[in-house]
Amino acid sequence: MIKIALIGAGVIGRIHARNISHSTTCSLAHVVDVDRGRAGELCRSFGGRADDSADAALSDDTVDAVVIASSTDAHKGHVLAAARAGKAILCEKPIADSLDDARHCVEEIERAGVIAAMGFNRRLDAAHRDLRNRLSAGDIGKIEMLRLVSRSASPPRPETAAHSGGMIREKGAHFFDLACWLAGSDPVEATAMGGCLIDPRFADFDDVDTAIVTLRLENGSLAGFDFGRRTAYGVDELIEVFGSDGLLLADRQPVPGVIQRAGARLSTPGLDRDWYQRFAPTYVDELAAFAAAVRGEAEVHASMADGLRAQAIAEAAIVSLRERRTVAIAPAWR
Amino acid sequence: MIKIALIGAGVIGRIHARNISHSTTCSLAHVVDVDRGRAGELCRSFGGRADDSADAALSDDTVDAVVIASSTDAHKGHVLAAARAGKAILCEKPIADSLDDARHCVEEIERAGVIAAMGFNRRLDAAHRDLRNRLSAGDIGKIEMLRLVSRSASPPRPETAAHSGGMIREKGAHFFDLACWLAGSDPVEATAMGGCLIDPRFADFDDVDTAIVTLRLENGSLAGFDFGRRTAYGVDELIEVFGSDGLLLADRQPVPGVIQRAGARLSTPGLDRDWYQRFAPTYVDELAAFAAAVRGEAEVHASMADGLRAQAIAEAAIVSLRERRTVAIAPAWR
Amino acid sequence: MIKIALIGAGVIGRIHARNISHSTTCSLAHVVDVDRGRAGELCRSFGGRADDSADAALSDDTVDAVVIASSTDAHKGHVLAAARAGKAILCEKPIADSLDDARHCVEEIERAGVIAAMGFNRRLDAAHRDLRNRLSAGDIGKIEMLRLVSRSASPPRPETAAHSGGMIREKGAHFFDLACWLAGSDPVEATAMGGCLIDPRFADFDDVDTAIVTLRLENGSLAGFDFGRRTAYGVDELIEVFGSDGLLLADRQPVPGVIQRAGARLSTPGLDRDWYQRFAPTYVDELAAFAAAVRGEAEVHASMADGLRAQAIAEAAIVSLRERRTVAIAPAWR
Amino acid sequence: MIKIALIGAGVIGRIHARNISHSTTCSLAHVVDVDRGRAGELCRSFGGRADDSADAALSDDTVDAVVIASSTDAHKGHVLAAARAGKAILCEKPIADSLDDARHCVEEIERAGVIAAMGFNRRLDAAHRDLRNRLSAGDIGKIEMLRLVSRSASPPRPETAAHSGGMIREKGAHFFDLACWLAGSDPVEATAMGGCLIDPRFADFDDVDTAIVTLRLENGSLAGFDFGRRTAYGVDELIEVFGSDGLLLADRQPVPGVIQRAGARLSTPGLDRDWYQRFAPTYVDELAAFAAAVRGEAEVHASMADGLRAQAIAEAAIVSLRERRTVAIAPAWR
Repeated sequence: MIKIALIGAGVIGRIHARNISHSTTCSLAHVVDVDRGRAGELCRSFGGRADDSADAALSDDTVDAVVIASSTDAHKGHVLAAARAGKAILCEKPIADSLDDARHCVEEIERAGVIAAMGFNRRLDAAHRDLRNRLSAGDIGKIEMLRLVSRSASPPRPETAAHSGGMIREKGAHFFDLACWLAGSDPVEATAMGGCLIDPRFADFDDVDTAIVTLRLENGSLAGFDFGRRTAYGVDELIEVFGSDGLLLADRQPVPGVIQRAGARLSTPGLDRDWYQRFAPTYVDELAAFAAAVRGEAEVHASMADGLRAQAIAEAAIVSLRERRTVAIAPAWR
Repeated sequence: MIKIALIGAGVIGRIHARNISHSTTCSLAHVVDVDRGRAGELCRSFGGRADDSADAALSDDTVDAVVIASSTDAHKGHVLAAARAGKAILCEKPIADSLDDARHCVEEIERAGVIAAMGFNRRLDAAHRDLRNRLSAGDIGKIEMLRLVSRSASPPRPETAAHSGGMIREKGAHFFDLACWLAGSDPVEATAMGGCLIDPRFADFDDVDTAIVTLRLENGSLAGFDFGRRTAYGVDELIEVFGSDGLLLADRQPVPGVIQRAGARLSTPGLDRDWYQRFAPTYVDELAAFAAAVRGEAEVHASMADGLRAQAIAEAAIVSLRERRTVAIAPAWR
Repeated sequence: MIKIALIGAGVIGRIHARNISHSTTCSLAHVVDVDRGRAGELCRSFGGRADDSADAALSDDTVDAVVIASSTDAHKGHVLAAARAGKAILCEKPIADSLDDARHCVEEIERAGVIAAMGFNRRLDAAHRDLRNRLSAGDIGKIEMLRLVSRSASPPRPETAAHSGGMIREKGAHFFDLACWLAGSDPVEATAMGGCLIDPRFADFDDVDTAIVTLRLENGSLAGFDFGRRTAYGVDELIEVFGSDGLLLADRQPVPGVIQRAGARLSTPGLDRDWYQRFAPTYVDELAAFAAAVRGEAEVHASMADGLRAQAIAEAAIVSLRERRTVAIAPAWR
Repeated sequence: MIKIALIGAGVIGRIHARNISHSTTCSLAHVVDVDRGRAGELCRSFGGRADDSADAALSDDTVDAVVIASSTDAHKGHVLAAARAGKAILCEKPIADSLDDARHCVEEIERAGVIAAMGFNRRLDAAHRDLRNRLSAGDIGKIEMLRLVSRSASPPRPETAAHSGGMIREKGAHFFDLACWLAGSDPVEATAMGGCLIDPRFADFDDVDTAIVTLRLENGSLAGFDFGRRTAYGVDELIEVFGSDGLLLADRQPVPGVIQRAGARLSTPGLDRDWYQRFAPTYVDELAAFAAAVRGEAEVHASMADGLRAQAIAEAAIVSLRERRTVAIAPAWR
C-alpha cells in the first residue's frame, strides 16, 4: 500500500481523493487544504487526516507520496517541500507560476532524486494511447502535421484568468504536451493568433477565449491547436496526426445512445457535457501509473521535464499573441 | 449504333428514353405506347417515331433491340413478339403476370436464341457491385446470412396493387434477385410474415405493406428481407452479408451535405427522397451493359432465368403468407 | 445494506459476487455451489460464507435476497425454495428447463408474494434504455418493425447445448424479451428458419448455430431476429426499430480507439471481443435496480412473467424450426 | 446559346471544353492555345475552331464570352484583351502573376463593364453550398473559427512551382476564398508556418509542401488552413466552421462502396484518388452559373474582386512565412 498525502481539496483534489480511496494499491493518509473544513469533508468521505498545512503530512514518515492539487500559486512551495522531504510527487500542471520558478522546481526534484510525475492525465486516455502506440509503431510513417482541437463546454468566469494564467497556459499545457509526446519531438518555435469572441471581459484579464496556435517541432513537423472556451454542444476534443503513410484520428467521442432517422436528417448522440464525464477513467489510470512508478515498476507516465516543456510552449505562444511574431522556444527542459 | 425500340412510355419508359438519347452507343428508333400521345411526347424530347402498337417497330429491320417497359399484363405479348422478331430484349420485371406465363416466355426466348436481359438495375449500383466483387473474391469466406432491407419513401395507392401484383412481387423481385446473385446460390424454401400497418386498404387488394421474408439457399445460407412501403425519412435500402470470415455492409447511402453539432445531438445528411434520385446511375449503366451484350462483348448483367427465379421466390413467399407455413421452391428457372 | 446469498459460483456467479462486494448498498453473505471449493474461492475474493447447499443461506434470517445463477436444471429447485423462504429473488434466465416448470415457479413466487426479478441485464444497457425511452416518448410514432441481431464472437462447445437448451432458448430469451419490452407488446406467433453452418456437430444435439426468427406482436408489429454463434469480428449486436414517424438504431458499439486512413480504405475500431467486455456495466446497474426494488423504491427492471413470456417465444420458435410452420404463442405469462 | 471562346487547351481547358460541348445553353466557338495542335485536338472532340492566338476569337462578334484557362503568366494579357473586346469573362485563378497586375486587371474589367467571374469552382460543391446556406441562415450563430484542410493526393514536380507561384498561391487561393465567402467577411491579417517535409526540392523553388496558415477576419473570427501536397490516401479536403450556437462540418467525402468487418477493425471506403474525380460536378455547375450571369439572370458565383482578395491573402501568408511575423492585409480588392 502506497500511503498518499493529498494537497488541495478542490475539484481536482476530490477526484484524486475518491480514486485513492477506491484504489487497491494506494491509501489516503492526509488531506491538506488552507480551508481545513474543505479538507475535512474529503476525509469524511474518503479517509485520511485533515490538515491546514502540509507540514504534518510531509514529516509523516509513513507517507510515501504527495499528490499536489493546490492552487497554482502554491505549487512551487509544495513541490519544493515535498522534494526536500523525499516524497514521490504527482503534480497537477502547471509546475509553478513562472517558467523560472518551474525550472527551479524541476532542478530541486532532480537534486532530491525523488520520483515525480506531471498530472498529464490525457496521455492515459484509451484513444490517445492507441494513437501513440500506432505512431510509435510507424503506422503512418514520418509525422508531418498534427491538429489538436480543444474547446471547453462552458467558459470559466473571466476573473479566474487572473489565477489560472489564462487559456493558453491552462488548456494549452495539456495539448502542447500531447503534441510533443505523440510526435516524440521537442518544440522549436510557435506562432499564435487569438481574440475574445465569447466574452470581451476576458480581455480585462489579458486573456483570450479563442485562439489558434502553430508549433514547429524539431523533427520538422507542424502542430496546429484550435482552442476555445465554450461550445454549444459539449466538450469538443480531437487529435489528428498526418504522416507520410497515412492519417490517424482520435475523433470526438460520442456518448452512448441511439441513432434516429426522421425527415431529411439523421441524428446521432453528441458529446459529453463536461470534461470529467469524458476523462474520468484517465484519472484512475493515472493513479495506477503513478503507483507503479513509485513501486519502481515503470517510468512515470509524464515527467516534470515534460511539464516544463509544455509550460515553455505556452509562454512562447503568449509572447507571439502579444508581439505578432513567431517566437523561438529555448529548450529550458533539458 | 444500336437502334432501339422502346415499348412503354410511362415513368420507367421515360428514364430509358432519356438514357438512350444521351448514350453514345444507342439511338432511339421507336417509342410504342397504347397512348400514342404519351409516346409522341417522349419522341419530341428524345427522338424516334411514335406508334400505338409494336408491329411497326418489330417489323423494322434496322431495329436491333427492344426495351420492354409496358404494363405488367402486356409484358408477355411484347416479349413473345420481340423474341419471334429476333430482337434483343431488355425486359423490366416481372417477365409476366403468372409464373407459368413467365416460364413460357423464357422458353420462347431460348428457342429464338435472342439476347435477353432482365431489368435488374440494382445489380449495377456501385456499392452492390463492390459487394458482389468482394464476396466473389472470398473476402468474408463462406456466406452464411444475408439481410436486405427495402422500404419505399412513399406508398403507392392501394388500387395499384391490383395491377402490380403487390409488394412482395413488385419490390421483392429486385431483392430476391440480389440475394441469389450475391450469394451465388439458388433458393430452396421461403417463409414470410406480413401485415397492413401503413394502410389497411392494401388488405382490400390482398396485399401487405409490411413484411419479413426468410429464404434458405442451396448453399445453406439464410437470407432475410425487411420490406415496407413508406418511411418518414426517404428511401431506405441496405444489404448486409455475413460470412465465416467477416461481414460486408452496403449501407444506407446519405445524400451529400454537412454535419451539424448543436446541443446534445449530432445531425448528418439523411437519405434520398425517391428511388430514382438514389438509383439514376444504375439505369445508365444497365443500358451500357445491355448494349455490350447486344454487341456480343459481354454476358447480360441479369438473365431471363434470373428473372424467373426471382418471380418463383415471390410466389412462394406469397403462399407462405397465406398458409402460414414454410414453402418449398420448385426450380422452375433451370 | 441488503444481505445477499449467491447461488452458483460459475462465470455469471463470479460477476455477481464482484458487483455485490463493490456495491455500497449490498453485501455478500453466502456463496452456494455444489462444488464447495468453487464457492470458497469466490468468498476469499469477495466475502461471504461458502456452502454446498442453499439450506443454510435460505434459513439465515439476516439474508434479504437470493441471486440464482446456478445451472439451468437447478433453477427450479432454487427458485421454489427461495420463494418459500420469503427471500427476494434475482433469477438468471431461463426460469426453469420447461415452460410448465417455469410457469409453476412464477405461480409459486406470486403466491409467496416475494420481490422477484429476471436477470435481463441487457435492458439496462445505456443505449437500450435510450432506445426504450424514445420509443415510449413516441419519437418514431407507431412501432411497425423491429430488427434484433445477436451473434456471439465464439461458439460454445456443441455438447453444452444439451444443458443450455440450445441457441434459440439461451441467446433468444434475451432478445425476445427486448423486443416485447421495447415494443410494449406481447407476442402472437412465431416462424423460424435455421441450420448448422458453423459446426455440424450442433445438429447432434438438436441445435442450430444460425437462425432467423420472425415474430408478430399484438400491436401488429413484426420483429425479426438474426442469431448466430460465431463471428470473425467480435460480439455483434444491434437493435433497430422502425416506426411510422422514423427509425431508431442502437447500433453495434465500437471499442475506443483511433481512425486510420491509408491507401483506398479507412479503418476504424471494431467490436468487443467478448460479451462481458460489452455488457459489464449492465450487471452493475442490474444489481442496483434489484436493490432498489428490494427496498421498495422501484419496480423490478424485468419481472418473472417477462421471463416466462420470453421462454414461451423460444419454445414456439423451436417448434416452428422443426415443423416448418408459423406457430401461435399461448399467453402463458399472464 | 452563349458562344464561348476557350483560351488554354491544357488540363483545365479540356474540362471546360467538354462541359461547354455537353451544355444545353453554351456552345464552343473557338479554342485558343499557343500550341495550335493541342487546341485542334480539343476542337476535334468538342467542336469550335482552333487558333494559336486569341485575336480571331476576340474580334469574332458572335462570341459572347471567354473562358481563360491559359498559363498563369498569360492571364493578364488575356484578361485585358477580353475586357477591351467587351466579352464576358470566366477566369481561372489567379487573375495575374502579381497582386499589382491583378488589381490592374480588375480595374480594367470594371471600366469595361463586362460580366466577369473567377473560377472558384469549389463554391459550387453540394456540401459547400449546404454549408454556406446554413451559415447564412444563422444555423450556428456567430462564426468564431473556421478550419480548412486541403492536401493533394500527389505532389506536382517541384519545377512547376516556378510557374504556378507555389502551394500557398495555387492551392491557397481556393481556400482563402472559401473562408471569406463562408464567413461573409474580409481578411485582416495572416500568419503562416511551413516547410518542405515531402520533398526538399520544393525549397529550391522557394516553395513549401506543408504549411499551416492562420487568418483573422474583420468579423473577428479566426480561420486556420492545413495545406499539404501529398497524402497516402487520396484527396484530403474538409471544412469545419465553429460558431456560438454549434459546429458545421463539410467532412471528407468517401467514395461509394461497402463496409467490411473482420478481426479487430472495421474498414470503410476511402477518398477519391484525384481532385477531378471529387470535384467534376462543380465545373458543370460553374459553367451553368456563369451562363446564367452572362444572360443577366444571376450574380456571378465569384467576382474578380473575390479573386483579388484571395490573392492578397496568399501574398500576406508568403511574407509571413519569410519574415516570421503576422502580416496585415491591405484591402486591395475594394
